Amino acid sequence: MKKAILFLMAVSASAISFTASAQFANPEDAIKYRKSAFSVTAAHFGRLGAMAQGKVAFDAKAAVDNAEVVANMAKLPWPAFGEGTDVGETKAKPEVWKQSAKFKEAADKYQAESVKLLAAAKTGKEDAFKAAFSATAGTCKSCHDDFRNK
Amino acid sequence: MKKAILFLMAVSASAISFTASAQFANPEDAIKYRKSAFSVTAAHFGRLGAMAQGKVAFDAKAAVDNAEVVANMAKLPWPAFGEGTDVGETKAKPEVWKQSAKFKEAADKYQAESVKLLAAAKTGKEDAFKAAFSATAGTCKSCHDDFRNK
Repeated sequence: MKKAILFLMAVSASAISFTASAQFANPEDAIKYRKSAFSVTAAHFGRLGAMAQGKVAFDAKAAVDNAEVVANMAKLPWPAFGEGTDVGETKAKPEVWKQSAKFKEAADKYQAESVKLLAAAKTGKEDAFKAAFSATAGTCKSCHDDFRNK
Repeated sequence: MKKAILFLMAVSASAISFTASAQFANPEDAIKYRKSAFSVTAAHFGRLGAMAQGKVAFDAKAAVDNAEVVANMAKLPWPAFGEGTDVGETKAKPEVWKQSAKFKEAADKYQAESVKLLAAAKTGKEDAFKAAFSATAGTCKSCHDDFRNK
């Protein structure tokens, strides 16, 4: 136990949360976290996109597997857009904090569509999957347009 | 639809999979992916660790929420340790590929413990949670010892 705890302290000391409202030790950790979450998302969303665009054959199981990851990941990044995380290695626009209600709305829409995308994938119907993919991609795009620098 | 597809191509072109066995366009994408997955994990594991170590009060809901993310994330990184991903921006030791059966075993152990950790968190019992946390941290440590450079 002691060894494992020492190990843990070494590995994740910087990520330990101290209060519920400050889940990251510093802004850099929060920025790294949200970028990591979006990177993981992008890989799986890209695989869904390849199927939606017909670049690879539709595979119902792969659609469900990847949509599940996207839906799970979609819940994560938002607490990492806290105060003080607007500067540094980030493409987030100041609008994330200036128009926080609008940002929250955009994030909520994306999360809702990612849940629908998973449900559509689970039907096993390619058309339903493609339509839901398109709707989800639309929420990505509009949020990026408004809140993310190129 | 067209706009969303163009957007998708711009955002995640490099992550599009072409075959089931080659889910990443290039080794750099695979390395970025697995590091991202571990970064997200570390944040949530750190929060569990803070509770396990008594640095913050045990909160059953937070334990479940964070253990759920850890268990979900634990499934992800492994396909990203494919051939050719042993060089570049990575701390992975050559042993990952030289002793691939041992690496797989270590990864499987961690995944199994992360599932048990979630189950323990769901009991709401702090002692069960602490014991399962320690067991999971042990699998992190042994895998890092054998397969990851400091």
